Formats: sequence, structure tokens, C-alpha cells
Amino acid sequence: MPESPIRKLAPFADLAKEKGHKVYHLNIGQPDIKSPEIAINAIKNIQLDIIEYGPSAGYESYRKKLAQFYTNQNVNVNTEDILITTGGSEALLFALGSIMDPEDELIIPEPFYANYSAFAAESAAKVVPVNSGFETGFELPSIADFEKLITPKSKAILICNPNNPTGYLYSESEILQLGELAKKHDLFLIADEVYREFIYGDDIHYSVMNLKGVEQNVIMIDSVSKRYSMCGARIGCMVTKNKDVIAAAMKFAQARLCPPTIAQIACEAAIDTPKSYFDEVISEYRDRRDTLVSELNKIEGVKVSTPKAAFYCIAELPVDNTDDFAQWLLESYDLNGETVMVAPAGGFYSTPGMGLNQVRIAYVLKKEDLIRAVAVLKEAIPAYNGRRKAL
Amino acid sequence: MPESPIRKLAPFADLAKEKGHKVYHLNIGQPDIKSPEIAINAIKNIQLDIIEYGPSAGYESYRKKLAQFYTNQNVNVNTEDILITTGGSEALLFALGSIMDPEDELIIPEPFYANYSAFAAESAAKVVPVNSGFETGFELPSIADFEKLITPKSKAILICNPNNPTGYLYSESEILQLGELAKKHDLFLIADEVYREFIYGDDIHYSVMNLKGVEQNVIMIDSVSKRYSMCGARIGCMVTKNKDVIAAAMKFAQARLCPPTIAQIACEAAIDTPKSYFDEVISEYRDRRDTLVSELNKIEGVKVSTPKAAFYCIAELPVDNTDDFAQWLLESYDLNGETVMVAPAGGFYSTPGMGLNQVRIAYVLKKEDLIRAVAVLKEAIPAYNGRRKAL
Ligand SMILES: Cc1ncc(COP(=O)(O)O)c(C=O)c1O
Ligand SMILES: Cc1ncc(COP(=O)(O)O)c(C=O)c1O
Repeated sequence: MPESPIRKLAPFADLAKEKGHKVYHLNIGQPDIKSPEIAINAIKNIQLDIIEYGPSAGYESYRKKLAQFYTNQNVNVNTEDILITTGGSEALLFALGSIMDPEDELIIPEPFYANYSAFAAESAAKVVPVNSGFETGFELPSIADFEKLITPKSKAILICNPNNPTGYLYSESEILQLGELAKKHDLFLIADEVYREFIYGDDIHYSVMNLKGVEQNVIMIDSVSKRYSMCGARIGCMVTKNKDVIAAAMKFAQARLCPPTIAQIACEAAIDTPKSYFDEVISEYRDRRDTLVSELNKIEGVKVSTPKAAFYCIAELPVDNTDDFAQWLLESYDLNGETVMVAPAGGFYSTPGMGLNQVRIAYVLKKEDLIRAVAVLKEAIPAYNGRRKAL
Repeated sequence: MPESPIRKLAPFADLAKEKGHKVYHLNIGQPDIKSPEIAINAIKNIQLDIIEYGPSAGYESYRKKLAQFYTNQNVNVNTEDILITTGGSEALLFALGSIMDPEDELIIPEPFYANYSAFAAESAAKVVPVNSGFETGFELPSIADFEKLITPKSKAILICNPNNPTGYLYSESEILQLGELAKKHDLFLIADEVYREFIYGDDIHYSVMNLKGVEQNVIMIDSVSKRYSMCGARIGCMVTKNKDVIAAAMKFAQARLCPPTIAQIACEAAIDTPKSYFDEVISEYRDRRDTLVSELNKIEGVKVSTPKAAFYCIAELPVDNTDDFAQWLLESYDLNGETVMVAPAGGFYSTPGMGLNQVRIAYVLKKEDLIRAVAVLKEAIPAYNGRRKAL
């Protein structure tokens, strides 16, 4: 099991806090947005004497409402295509477990969500990265680049759309190209769409579930974690029209009995969250994004492009090793008692040596805090580089 | 992934219900006992604006209280030995994932909880059954029987204590013998103790955590599912003094982010469940067990011994294939509109052909229902055997 380098920083964050330093957490994907009241109320009003096992596929009533939720967004999903899982995490695990044999290859544009490596390892599958460059704003690598990597062992392509860690939103045309590619080589196309709601411009999210002619190859991963700021509910889903994949995933699902029942009740209620909730959330994140990017651009030598979606961006810093820099920020630096925790981007690449001058920044903090955090970074970078020279 | 033959019966149960038949479910481990009020109230009184991710190892406060809970029962557990998991199911998955390499062998007394095979398969480990006979009341197989099966590939022994499906409670002396065996051959000893509270006589549950001199080899699995009749909470734990195992399991834990947070709050509250709750529950199950066994013993040709613990027993029936009989009960039989669903015991054996004349019966129904259910069985058996002759 691979371990993410981000986690290695945790003890240093504890150290900084022990010293009494305030740490701005730009490193995590835990939104500070309130969960919808309707969901919290469903929990408070729970009418249960016995917290019983539910069905392994999730409550039928919830699966039905969820199918309707997708249909309302013109995403082509029926109740029987949905398996409710313990977070998007378990959906990824079930999807890979259902389609990958040991040694099979899973092609993923890098940088990518670090836990993909862990989930692939749990199926003994091999991750094959295809580079999506910082220079091109992390757009889809060319189809030729994908095709160079396809071997008889290739089983699937996994994308994250909108993307963590890059904030990139794949266009309809890019998704169509991937659909063609999957069809041509008979590969599965898995799309992790857990950030589907977080889009800040006029672009429209194009779900893989809407691809035509390749329905049997497509698997969508979703989650309530980000949509409703309900990360701790641990409810997600795996969605596919492919009945064999559903049947295979059901065996994993039955072995673990069922997804959490109280949380499912909250999630079912959450489907009726009013549009105004999302309007507020999106406008809040849009503001934060704009603030973050404009503040970062004020720092000499920092490069960042405006992410279109999700709540992350990758920034290039004028330091030569962000693993070391991130640790130093926690271990040895503070600006008036404040410091910053960032995620060194190396952990999002599986190609060794990539992303060493990049960090991922999550804009899940209030605007004022983002401004303070970037101000700390601005002072810290020259201090860090100066310290290095003095060694 | 192996599939349990019990699940193959589900469509036939649906069929029976569609015909309007009442089906007594003697086949499942879902208690009908109320969850403790204190836990339900903790959910109703939840004070959260954001349902956030918790720590991957579970809430520190919960782990502390849980360690105290074990200490109060003289079970040797500290906070840092505990990893909170999504049900005992995930604890089993993490334990096996942490210690088993592909092809490694896991020795399990059979009959055993059918999902053990699925969890072993998820680690590509091989299950090696050691027979614990119906004739000897499912006591621990002799150490010589275990030793015959030990090879260089043997990595662990897994027991379930109290046992599902047999209702057997291992004695202190049996656990001590297993401890010696684990030490001698340097094997892990995993004990699934999710039924530890359900003991109906004066026998005392001896936890593997109390074994001396073999602490580094011992892993305990536990769960709130049965203890508090909170199966849907999906909270369990993996417990071990072995820091390397904890560290390995933490990688799986971190990849899936965290166990359900709302349910953890309920479980933390549940630790203060008054003793009177358990007294009532135990006395209820004791009554049910006594009723079930005495009713079963009234049927000619049925053999059953009184289980000491958990809420299952294995009964031998005078039919030659309980897979077929169980299906027939649902598909083709009713007594005044009522029928019975039992778990054919073949699914609890990994040796092909074993347990074909046995069923597992769970006594999770009210006494009156148990009496009715056994009355149905009593009529059904000769009807089934007669039908066979008439063919
Ligand atoms: C891209 C991506 N996929 C999946 C997940 C898993 O989320 P969860 O298991 O909480 O649904 C995350 C969480 O951060 C994520 O960023
Ligand atoms: C022996 C045994 N172990 C583990 C489990 C898993 O329980 P859970 O995942 O609900 O904690 C069960 C459930 O029936 C069981 O019978």
C-alpha cells in the first residue's frame, strides 16, 4: 500500500500547533460550508427504534430519489444502475475490484487524487500515468498519448472530472474523445465526478453517463461528501449500465453487509436541498477562487492558472522541492505566529520526480483566511530560499 | 469473490412473499432488539453544522472510551491499540489486508461465517478449513488437527468466539491452546469477538487480548452491530498490540478517509448503556434459545445441541440436501400461509459437501414466532421427504 507524502506532514502540523502557531490548512478537501439544514434535521428527527442493517445496494427509496436527481440534471441514470457505497472511496474500491485482475493496468492522467494508487493497490492493479501538463492547464492529454500506453493488460481509464488536484473541468469534446477511445480499445472508462456541482463559470459538466454507444464500458463514481458538505456521512455511489459490473460489485457490497443507514436517511433528505443552497455555495467558492488566484499572482515567481471547477488548484512555486518546503513551513517557520500547510504536489504524480516545484492549494477557507495564508506564503518563500543559501 | 448460497435464496423469499405467505426469517443475524435509547438520543440531539471527515483511526474520544470499556471488563486494551472501522466487516478486511500476502493461508475452524471467504478473497489469501464437528458440539478441533494443516504459507488462524454459526463459546483453555499454537508457529491469531456479550450460562468469555506472551500475534475484531443492536451504524474496530499491524491497517484506513461520523457519536454515547439493558437482552435471548432448542427437539430426526452463546445454532435435519429443502420451503411450501427461511449450512463450510443435512437457525425472533416457525418446519420435513418419494 503506497502512502501519500501529504500524510507524512501531519506530525509537523501537530508540532506547529504545539508551538502555539496558527496553521492555515490549504492542504485538505474538507469544506467549511454548512451541511444542508434539511439533512441535519432528518438526523435529528430520526424515527428508529432499531438501527438495522439496510440492503447491501443501499435503500431502494434513496436509490430511486438519486436516480431522479440525476435525471433532473439530464444525466442518464436509472435506479438499477446505482449501488450505494460507503463514500466515493468505497465506490472506487468496488469499481476497481470488479473490473481489474492482478497486474491489469489502469491509465490515469496525472496529477491525480493520491488515494487512487491505494485503491488500485488493493486490487493489485498497476497504475499507468499519462501526463497532463501544468503548461496546458491540465487539459486532457492527447489521445495519441493515451494510445502509446495501451497494452494487452490495459483494462480501464480513470479520470476525475472536475479534477482534484488541478481544478480542471473536462469539456464535452474531451469526454467524447475518451468515450471513442474506450470503445475502440474496449476499455472501461471510470469517471470520478464527486465535484460535479462545483463549477464557477458557464461551462457545463458533461457526465460520462451521457456517452452514447459505449454505455457498457462506463462507470461513474459519485459522493455526497462535497455536494452537501457531508464528508463524514460516508455515502457515495457507483453507477453503471453494465449489469456484470453491478453484479460483481454486489458481491463486495454483500460481504460488507450495507452502507451506513442513518447517513443514508440524511442523504435521502438532502436530495431536496433547495437550489439557493448551491447558489450560495458556488458563489462563495467562486469568490474564494478569485481571491486565491489574484493573491497568489502577486507573489513573484508563483505560477497558477484559474481553475474552472472543484476547489483546488496547482501552483508552481519558486522553490526546488515542495516536500521539503511544506515541512519547513510547519517545522521552522512562522510569520507573527502563523504558518501554512500546503500539499506538496509530488504526491499527486505517480511518475517519480514530477511536480516537485508544485503544491496543491485547496480553497476551503474563508476569504480573509485565504488572504492571510497567501500573505504568509509570500514572506515564507524568500525566507526559505534564503535559508537554503545560508546553509 | 465467492458467493454465499444463502443469498441465492433471497429471490425465493421474495416469491413466497409475493404469494402472500408469511415468511419466518430464521436465516439472518439482524436482531429485533431495540438499540439503547442513549444512542438513539445522541443521534437526535446531534449538535453539528457540518458533517465533517473525522480522523482515519476514528474519533480519539471514542477510542478512549472504548479502551476504558474493555478495561472495565478486564480485557487488556489501550486507546492506541484500537482502530475504529466501518463495521466489524471492515476490521476483518483491514486485518487480513494487513497481514496476508497473495497465496498466504488462513486457517479457520469450519463451519464459519460465510463472509470470511469473501474477505480472504479480497486479499487473495487462501482459506484452509479445519473441521469442528457437529458430534463434538463444535468444540475447538485438536491442536494436532491444526498442526497437520500448517505449511510455510500459513499466516494466521481466524476464530469466531462466540461462534457464528454454531453458537459455540471457546473455553479459556481452548484459547490458551490456540495462543500456544500461534506462538510456536509464529502465526497471527485473529479472534472475531462481535458476539462477546451474548453468553447465556455461567461461562466467561475469554478474549484473545488477554493472552500473555503472544501479544504481538493477536488481533481482535469487534463491532457495535450486535452488542447494541446497531447493525446499520456500521461501526466496529480492529484491536491489536502489534504496532506494525496497526500501521499497515492505517494505510487502508487513510485511503478510505474515515469511518461514519454520526454513527461514531451514537456509539460513543452507547458505551454508557446501563447494565440493565444487557440483562434484559440476555435473558430474552436465553429464553428464545431454550424455546427454540426444546421445540426443535420435538421434531423426529432433528438433532441440535444447546448453544452457549451468540444467537445461532446448527441443527441436523432428516433431509438429504438442505440447500434444496430451504429453497423448496420458500418456493413450494406453506402451512396455512406461513413458511420458514433457514440458512443451509453448506454455505458455512468451505469443504465441499459438508453440512448438507444441516441448517443454521438464528433465534432473533420473538418466542411465539419461534414456536410457530418450528411448527412449520415440523410439518414441512415429512412433506418434503414425501414429495421426494413421490417423484
Ligand atoms: C477526487 C476524489 N474522489 C473521491 C474522494 C472520496 O471521497 P468520499 O469517500 O468522502 O466520498 C475524494 C475525497 O476527497 C476526492 O477528492
Ligand atoms: C461473525 C461475524 N463477524 C462479523 C460480522 C460483521 O458485522 P458488522 O460488519 O455489522 O460489524 C458479522 C455479522 O453478522 C458476524 O456474524
